[in-house]
Amino acid sequence: MYTLLKNSGTARRGSFETFHGTVQTPGFMNVATVAAIKGGLSALDLKDIRCQVMLCNTYHLHVRTGDEKIKAMGGLHRFTKWDGPILTDSGGFQVFSLANVRDIKEDGVVFHSHIDGKKIFMGPEESMRIQSNLGSTIAMAFDECVANPAEYAYAKMSCERTSRWLYRCKEEHERLNALCDAVNPHQLLFGINQGCTYDDLRIAHMKEIAALDLDGYAIGGLAVGEHAEEMYRVITAVEPFMPQNKIRYLMGVGTPGNILEGVKRGVDLFDCVMPSRNARHGHLFTKRGIINLNNAKYETDMRPLDEACDCPVCRHFSRAYLRHLMKAREVLALRLCVMHNLYFYNRLMEEIREALDCDSFEDYYKQYIGVLDKRCTD
Amino acid sequence: MYTLLKNSGTARRGSFETFHGTVQTPGFMNVATVAAIKGGLSALDLKDIRCQVMLCNTYHLHVRTGDEKIKAMGGLHRFTKWDGPILTDSGGFQVFSLANVRDIKEDGVVFHSHIDGKKIFMGPEESMRIQSNLGSTIAMAFDECVANPAEYAYAKMSCERTSRWLYRCKEEHERLNALCDAVNPHQLLFGINQGCTYDDLRIAHMKEIAALDLDGYAIGGLAVGEHAEEMYRVITAVEPFMPQNKIRYLMGVGTPGNILEGVKRGVDLFDCVMPSRNARHGHLFTKRGIINLNNAKYETDMRPLDEACDCPVCRHFSRAYLRHLMKAREVLALRLCVMHNLYFYNRLMEEIREALDCDSFEDYYKQYIGVLDKRCTD
Repeated sequence: MYTLLKNSGTARRGSFETFHGTVQTPGFMNVATVAAIKGGLSALDLKDIRCQVMLCNTYHLHVRTGDEKIKAMGGLHRFTKWDGPILTDSGGFQVFSLANVRDIKEDGVVFHSHIDGKKIFMGPEESMRIQSNLGSTIAMAFDECVANPAEYAYAKMSCERTSRWLYRCKEEHERLNALCDAVNPHQLLFGINQGCTYDDLRIAHMKEIAALDLDGYAIGGLAVGEHAEEMYRVITAVEPFMPQNKIRYLMGVGTPGNILEGVKRGVDLFDCVMPSRNARHGHLFTKRGIINLNNAKYETDMRPLDEACDCPVCRHFSRAYLRHLMKAREVLALRLCVMHNLYFYNRLMEEIREALDCDSFEDYYKQYIGVLDKRCTD
Repeated sequence: MYTLLKNSGTARRGSFETFHGTVQTPGFMNVATVAAIKGGLSALDLKDIRCQVMLCNTYHLHVRTGDEKIKAMGGLHRFTKWDGPILTDSGGFQVFSLANVRDIKEDGVVFHSHIDGKKIFMGPEESMRIQSNLGSTIAMAFDECVANPAEYAYAKMSCERTSRWLYRCKEEHERLNALCDAVNPHQLLFGINQGCTYDDLRIAHMKEIAALDLDGYAIGGLAVGEHAEEMYRVITAVEPFMPQNKIRYLMGVGTPGNILEGVKRGVDLFDCVMPSRNARHGHLFTKRGIINLNNAKYETDMRPLDEACDCPVCRHFSRAYLRHLMKAREVLALRLCVMHNLYFYNRLMEEIREALDCDSFEDYYKQYIGVLDKRCTD
């Protein structure tokens, strides 16, 4: 259940109650694709990096180790030992981007596993069943994610199919939650707004799915090829039609600057692989901009990555040591850099919430919007 | 300073005082080749896995990031943030095995870096200088490590040269410790016994180096091609000639069984890459033998790796989750498996010490010698 605590213009400060704990919003979900954060972070580390929600990928877990086996072991929480909220995506994005898609039909999608080429069918009911087996806190509706730019006609047709799929998702989700052997009978369901970059499609679709009274609403199909300005325009267009009393999630976004812009436009939840992916390439976020650890000038720099940061990495290790590990291709470099970047994101959200709490979000936005996504010159 | 606390036959229970803390023996040193344990363990994790001594490789740190730079940053302790004892090897083993050795002369060795092919010269003085720059707690003398089997004539010649190198090491080490800018003016020096598998060479060499009154003595050049039985025979032959009042270190050894045999024959310190290397391949040590995590039967096995183990991994995660991570080639699999195996080794040494303390080492040896190196049938 979402509670709106405060507004600052369109920006919202809220809290979201789930079976696995309360999420303070705006918040960032930490991506653990195959039930583990890339870079060697376990559930035991997530508290240290101030993670609120772990996000796992339905498609990956379906193809390996398999959702039925994970259900038999008690679901994702018992499997990973993370006791906080877990959101699972629908599998749709991965099916359309990773797998070898053969055929999209009204029923669903036939594709080939990226691991062993095995033919798999996934539609709304299958996605719901897999997510129910995983026992996540929040399930996402099965949708088609279309890359931008897309033809209007295709976008409209796909969007309508995604609506029809949503009705089927909702029905199947209710049926599964009511089963006596459900891993998490309190599983929530979020709907996903689609419509590519066409405001009219976005608005019409949002109006339609808002009527379903789901537990939350996501904006999907953005950050998939369009310019950031176009993304902001779509959010601004669709936001007035999102229910005020429901949590709102902007999928797969983004840079710290993208997140500030999203919060400003009324978004509550974000997720992105950027902090962990960039970390693995030695790109580290700081309050003074992005550091490229591969730069030779850091070879004997004994300062922490970010002097303003109190993450476990900045409290103990130097840029020089991290760079040394990175150059030696040590696994420890990945772990420490991912740890810092995720902490940075989680802490950024805390600061945004603090700013909203004390009516200074506009100041915070102005102070950092031009800094966080730029190269740090330290 | 080594203090012999107790004997059980030839086995010894002791303690070894260093500038960076006291080491309880018998003990196992955890290998952190480039100043990081393989598998993403940092200095912060070492306490959790009950590590007493970290071992770093001189050759690797010399070629990257460079010992002079590390000295300028305050030495290995400041670099890694490990505040306990650090032993650095001499670089000899890596020079002869990893690098492209061009020429062994009386002065030292010319070789090519395995990273960029750069021509490097290393002799006794260079090795001492590098280790002094690193500021380790214990430096190892520069020696030639000959692969077994070796010709008697070559073994004898090499062994004599290693003796001459040791005199030069001692002199240079004393000079470096006395410099006003020494990173660790209390650095200790261990000599290394060589002589391949020839008992007479081993004994003669041991007698010669024992006279130098060094801080400790290592047996080198074993576990490099010969049978375990031959290794045990050499240790038994040379042990009576090792000073009773000095710590004894068997280099690069070995399996849990090898360690039990070594302790039985009077060895105090061990090091080996086996626990971390095996972990990376899914081979996990338990008190009931070795588990191969790749085995399909563990796919839904919710038991910990070792029900008798209280390491951070066994306290939280299942065989099924670890196997899932291993199959998905997640970095977290490496971290957790390395963590367990190193904890297993460190805990094994604690149990050996406890057994020596209460005069039950023979029983402990008999209970586990036939089990630990075998496949676990669980």
